[in-house]
Amino acid sequence: MGQLDPFFYPDSVAVIGASREPGSVGHELLRVMVENKEKGLYRGRLYAVNPRATEPILGVPTYKSVSELPEAVDLGVVVVPARIVPAVLEECGSKGIKYVIVISGGFAEVGGEGVKLQEELIRVAKKHGIRVVGPNCVGVVCPETGVDTMFLPYSKEIGGRLLPSLPRPGPGNISLLTQSGAFGVACVDYMAGEGLGLAKFVSYGNKADVDEVELMEYLADDPKTRVIVIYAESIEEGRRFVEAARRTVPKKPVVVLKAGRTSAGARAASSHTAALAGTDEVYSAAFKQSGIVRVYEVEELFDVTKALSMQPPARGRRVAVLTDGGGAGVMTADELESRGAEVVPLSSETRAKLEALMREGIIPPISSVANPVDVTGSATDDAFVEALKVLVEAPEVDGIIVLPLHHVPGLTSDLPNRIAEVAKKGNKPVLVADIGQGAYGVAFRERFDELGVPAYPTPERAARAMVGLIKYGEALKRLGAL
Amino acid sequence: MGQLDPFFYPDSVAVIGASREPGSVGHELLRVMVENKEKGLYRGRLYAVNPRATEPILGVPTYKSVSELPEAVDLGVVVVPARIVPAVLEECGSKGIKYVIVISGGFAEVGGEGVKLQEELIRVAKKHGIRVVGPNCVGVVCPETGVDTMFLPYSKEIGGRLLPSLPRPGPGNISLLTQSGAFGVACVDYMAGEGLGLAKFVSYGNKADVDEVELMEYLADDPKTRVIVIYAESIEEGRRFVEAARRTVPKKPVVVLKAGRTSAGARAASSHTAALAGTDEVYSAAFKQSGIVRVYEVEELFDVTKALSMQPPARGRRVAVLTDGGGAGVMTADELESRGAEVVPLSSETRAKLEALMREGIIPPISSVANPVDVTGSATDDAFVEALKVLVEAPEVDGIIVLPLHHVPGLTSDLPNRIAEVAKKGNKPVLVADIGQGAYGVAFRERFDELGVPAYPTPERAARAMVGLIKYGEALKRLGAL
Repeated sequence: MGQLDPFFYPDSVAVIGASREPGSVGHELLRVMVENKEKGLYRGRLYAVNPRATEPILGVPTYKSVSELPEAVDLGVVVVPARIVPAVLEECGSKGIKYVIVISGGFAEVGGEGVKLQEELIRVAKKHGIRVVGPNCVGVVCPETGVDTMFLPYSKEIGGRLLPSLPRPGPGNISLLTQSGAFGVACVDYMAGEGLGLAKFVSYGNKADVDEVELMEYLADDPKTRVIVIYAESIEEGRRFVEAARRTVPKKPVVVLKAGRTSAGARAASSHTAALAGTDEVYSAAFKQSGIVRVYEVEELFDVTKALSMQPPARGRRVAVLTDGGGAGVMTADELESRGAEVVPLSSETRAKLEALMREGIIPPISSVANPVDVTGSATDDAFVEALKVLVEAPEVDGIIVLPLHHVPGLTSDLPNRIAEVAKKGNKPVLVADIGQGAYGVAFRERFDELGVPAYPTPERAARAMVGLIKYGEALKRLGAL
Repeated sequence: MGQLDPFFYPDSVAVIGASREPGSVGHELLRVMVENKEKGLYRGRLYAVNPRATEPILGVPTYKSVSELPEAVDLGVVVVPARIVPAVLEECGSKGIKYVIVISGGFAEVGGEGVKLQEELIRVAKKHGIRVVGPNCVGVVCPETGVDTMFLPYSKEIGGRLLPSLPRPGPGNISLLTQSGAFGVACVDYMAGEGLGLAKFVSYGNKADVDEVELMEYLADDPKTRVIVIYAESIEEGRRFVEAARRTVPKKPVVVLKAGRTSAGARAASSHTAALAGTDEVYSAAFKQSGIVRVYEVEELFDVTKALSMQPPARGRRVAVLTDGGGAGVMTADELESRGAEVVPLSSETRAKLEALMREGIIPPISSVANPVDVTGSATDDAFVEALKVLVEAPEVDGIIVLPLHHVPGLTSDLPNRIAEVAKKGNKPVLVADIGQGAYGVAFRERFDELGVPAYPTPERAARAMVGLIKYGEALKRLGAL
């Protein structure tokens, strides 16, 4: 059992500062927990605290103060104004509550009085041995247990319809740590829409106590987490971070998006978080040393993470491309090579096997058996499957990008299943790309995703994801773990 | 009236090599034209030619030979085997048919005998003054007139459902020229799914006669085309291309994705098209000289094109960012600066106006009025609208990226309308980014798109689109047109 377990696996939760006012943070946060309890997601006990309470809020037993709660809850979630947070923490300490998420803002991030308030918060927490996530954060989301402190509106009206404006992802193996709450919220929405599953989400805000390093180490040993994603604008304790990453990376990949990488970005970041962002070269060197897979964009973040969450690392940088569209093959090769991967010619043995398939009429006679292998618009499911088998067995190939552009008449919806079966037998990563935003293309790619073969809507996005798998393989080798 | 008009605006079309066999090219192509006629999209006359015809195919009057056709059609579409294409062209010539699309493959792209067949095709076409698109192509799509020779299956089965596998975009102002048919097909599907409208699409294949240069010049004067997009793997007549582009760019932007930019890609491209791809430096220099906006990826291609199709070029590289999420603002600044745009501090006049808005309570008191302008999670529609008005009027700002992350409680579905209204009043580009793939986020961005303010699902994609607008502005200045 990990030290931070109660943040994710509490048997009892109290929302301190719960409100009857729809739209307020203290109301919306409680509402999410109530709904998760009704849905059977959150199975623990739930309480609310409000000094003016006379009856239950949203049907939840509500108390006038923390001290009146019927038990020392596993987890307190604090949404009261900043200036009374230290007093509330005192009460929590006296009550014996040891884990608290402070949602409230108005601390170090606003400077002046806020800095002092945060110091006071830290002092009280230390005195009582309370572990604190926050302040100034959106807290925790754990789809496995229904713990969810994301207090923003779940749906909003547009065009006369009420649509989910902040859907939550289902349970999965990706965990996300974020310094920016707003970006964390956006990521949760992004993951939900893309069908990416979430293990644990923590917006750690001002990290007055629990920080990204401790969370990373916790997730390193979390059996539900296969990939750790971190969004950071500043990392103050660089040495601790690097050491934690070096211990974590051999167990699972750590993907970091460090914003503020340019001077304009760094200036914006320091005005945003009041922390010095540091020079980007220092971060780059530290990340490389610790085996972190660094990404530079939101889309790349999730594309690489999706690949790492489903496929093994690449044991080298030699990639084979298998396509039914010559142009898409060229673009894949371009992006791979421009990012340091190698699209090397295939060995004569591999070529001979592919040529045999051609003679047998399994792959079309006009196919190209160079790399990219182009089975052309006359390709069938069989052509892709048999050519992929050859590439999976080729010792000169470390990873494969398959581009079964779905438009050609010979490809059917059986292909995802058959490709996934072949991919599973090898010990090298297989990624898919297919272009087209129409309904079939979207469904075709979803099918691959569901089968554990990550699919992307452009050749370049698949290529970048493959580069992520290569980088993780290289990190493992550097750390002696592959 | 342009020289190539009959390819897009024919009053009569004959499908030569039409077939009764579902799934065959000659059947599917005719079917698309028949359906477009039934839908009232194609309003001209339609004929079929099949040597074994005894009765109509798909209800279309069918003749045993071209010479038996009741008129010299404006456009012939040829789908017969390569070896009889020259003879069919002879017949077309005798009949007086002057515009022909040759879909059939088996020419220069296969080498050997195919090269000779293509020479013969050219000889016959020249003799009769026939203009030819192709061979080895998927031809033309013109949503305005319903001319559509894209013969691939329109729908396919997946998960027990028949879904559109190759939907067509509606009419719009983007025209697309492509050397690769398969990539062209994929682009049409991509545009349809993304809601991007199409003016004219031409897959020119082996360009035995009509090539990308002549098509570009035709589109330069096409009133329906606002942006010309070209996908090319090889450009043989560089000087002609550059000169045509220099004449075209002052009228409308030309966006080029030149595949084969790395050695691996170039090797793949030359095995694909049998054309020398040329060194990338030469292409880069030529593109720059001619004012072409060069892009490197599929997604960037359409992101930049969407911006150019809706917004004016930027008159300089100074970009302001307006956000309700600090992190997203930082990422936007990072991507802009890393691609050569400038995220400069705002002038004291502009800051004073924003500070006044803060004092009046229109933008939240904790806002940052540096660049990015961060109106925080407490932002309202009013905050965005009034701050945007200030930025649109600021002389030190050439373009604006607005990031109204939709999750915050204060933003409503009125915002797209209001932002579009302010954006229209300025003479500088305004782009939007909002993160989240859930239903509301998708609908929110679609609303912006419909109002002519291009919206993107990540900060970086909006930043790259802005860089495209900056590059077009710079090209216009270099060519003395801005």
